[in-house]
Formats: sequence, C-alpha cells, structure tokens
Amino acid sequence: MKISLGAKTLAQPAPLWIVGSYDEDGRANAMAAAWGGICCSKPPCITVSLREERHSYASILARRAFTISVPSIRFAAQADYFGIASGKDVDKFAATGLTPVRSELVDAPYVGEFPLVLECALLRTVELGMHIQFIGEIVDVKAEEDVLDEKGYPDAAKVRPLIFTPVTRAYHTVGEYVGQAFEIGRSFGEKS
Amino acid sequence: MKISLGAKTLAQPAPLWIVGSYDEDGRANAMAAAWGGICCSKPPCITVSLREERHSYASILARRAFTISVPSIRFAAQADYFGIASGKDVDKFAATGLTPVRSELVDAPYVGEFPLVLECALLRTVELGMHIQFIGEIVDVKAEEDVLDEKGYPDAAKVRPLIFTPVTRAYHTVGEYVGQAFEIGRSFGEKS
Repeated sequence: MKISLGAKTLAQPAPLWIVGSYDEDGRANAMAAAWGGICCSKPPCITVSLREERHSYASILARRAFTISVPSIRFAAQADYFGIASGKDVDKFAATGLTPVRSELVDAPYVGEFPLVLECALLRTVELGMHIQFIGEIVDVKAEEDVLDEKGYPDAAKVRPLIFTPVTRAYHTVGEYVGQAFEIGRSFGEKS
Repeated sequence: MKISLGAKTLAQPAPLWIVGSYDEDGRANAMAAAWGGICCSKPPCITVSLREERHSYASILARRAFTISVPSIRFAAQADYFGIASGKDVDKFAATGLTPVRSELVDAPYVGEFPLVLECALLRTVELGMHIQFIGEIVDVKAEEDVLDEKGYPDAAKVRPLIFTPVTRAYHTVGEYVGQAFEIGRSFGEKS
C-alpha cells in the first residue's frame, strides 16, 4: 500500500557532487551539492542548484564557470565536509588536505584527488525559489586512468560515486551490477 | 593521472526514472529518463529532460503534468523496456504487465508497482538543445509502506533504486551504507 508523504524532495537516487569555483579574491572554493543532474546531450549540459546565500553563488556568476568533482567512497568524509563548512570562513581545501587544480578550460578549480571531474561554462541560470539552477555546458571531462573501463569510459564500479538520499540524509555507494541499458528490457519487445 | 575524455555527459551517478503522462487519446504512457534531478527545495521541484520527438513530450505539455516513478532493482527489465519502446506504437504498461494508476492530484499516471512515486505539476520548460528540460513542482510523494524507515521516509536500501551510468550504459543498484550527511565530515571541522 502506498503512503502519502507530502510535497517533499524525496527523489532517489541523488548525487553527491562537489562544485568548484574561484571567489572574488581568487581563492579556490568548493561546496557539496545534491540537487543536480545531466540536462542535455547536445550541447552536453549539467545542472546544479544553489541557494543565493552560498559563497559559491556569486563566484560562479562572476566567472561564468564551475566544475563538478565526483568523490569516490574513500573521500566521503572530505566531500561531506564541503557541505558543512562555508568558504566565507575557511579554506576547505586546506582543511581537508585536498588539492585545488586550476582548470585550463574554464575559470574554476576542481578537486585533484577525485576520480571524475566535469569542467563547465555557465550557460544560464533559472530562478526557482529557494534554489537557483545553474546550467553549465560541459567543455571537458577528466577521469583517473584507473577508473576507466576497457573502452576508456568511467566505470561506476571503479569510480564508486556517492549516492545521497534526501531527507534521510544517508550516503550509500554504488552496489551490484544489474545489466545493460537498452538490452535487459528486450524480453518485453524490441525497439519499434 | 587524469585523462581528458572530451565534452561528454559523463556525470555519475544518474538515475533511472520512469516519466508518466497521458497522451492526446487519454492513454497512459511512460518513458525511461536518466537526465534529471531535484532542482529546488522550496517549492519542491524536480527536473527531467526530454527530446521533442518523444511521445511523452506533447503529452506533458498539453496536460501540464507528469509523474516520476522510481523502479526498484526487481523491475529493472521492465524499466529498461520503457526506454526501448515508444508509446506511439505500443502500450508499454500492457507489454510489461505493470499498472498505470491515475494520480488524484495531477493529470498523469504513475506505475503502481514501483516503490516510490512523485506527482508533479509542470512549472516551466527550458530549451537547451537536443533536450528540453521540464521542471515540475512536486505536489505529493507516495511510497510503499515497506520501503519506509522508522521515521517514515524512503530508505534507499529498501527502495533499491537503479543507477544509470552514462555512455557505458550500465545499471547498478545502491550498495553499502557509507554514513550520514552533515555528520561524517565533522572530523575536518564544525559548521562555522
């Protein structure tokens, strides 16, 4: 039986991403974000939503650039810290010992130690209410060599990204392999 | 060492969601989507991106409503089929044996057997290129009683949602519990 839970942001799964930017003083900053996703294939675009009071908000608007660094499970505590502290008060890279790497393509830093990174040019913003959606065009993706599959693309079982569950606030990582998209459903019929 | 992979939609994790709508003939239809995410807390909003040629595209625009049904791992093949066939040609609910349930709140159906469902009123669309982003206000969330935790919210370990990996097209499910958000990072410093 289905229970009504009200108008809440209870979608699953949500990501845990670290959004990198340079602030007005040129300091590398980063924040944790779970409200986001890919939003277009051509041009390749990704969206992430921020509150206006976040230190990263003005930084991204000013430089028209941000990065998404995908933490693996072994950086879960560091990634979580990026959602606890504010770049207004502390240097989160220094506090965690992680390395801000300057992108050569966009005016923003990414987390050097994380296995998967997307460099984005801000395309537009969409005001929605508590959050403003930032839509970025993905200009490059960089991944550690050891998380790539035999075809050269990031394998989720090797990246081991974190999954955030809204409201319960639990982090999980990626689990068992289930099958291939556009294949396992063919038992119900082929593409028409 | 990081390898450059080019401008591709290689973010992880992405969801596998089933988007429900009624077409112009009043038939329940649903499609698989992986380009989406929560985009605002107040009002609670979710975004999903569709190509204009999809059968669901005109349906959602006409009725200003859609649902997101979250499949669990045991419905992986059915959910994948929703991304293979088109509602222009076949009744995907009939083909899979799944039940379209009419939402009492928005003019769209959801998948009765899936453990977690979001009912959404279309707020706006954002044209991006190959995909158009649909932003929906979440008007209610419904979940099966047996996927709720002790506080009454959906537990990812019980929902067992599917994770889609772009480009490699692999499905995984949620794995091990890692810890609580806003807690495991406190070793690096408290909230300032």
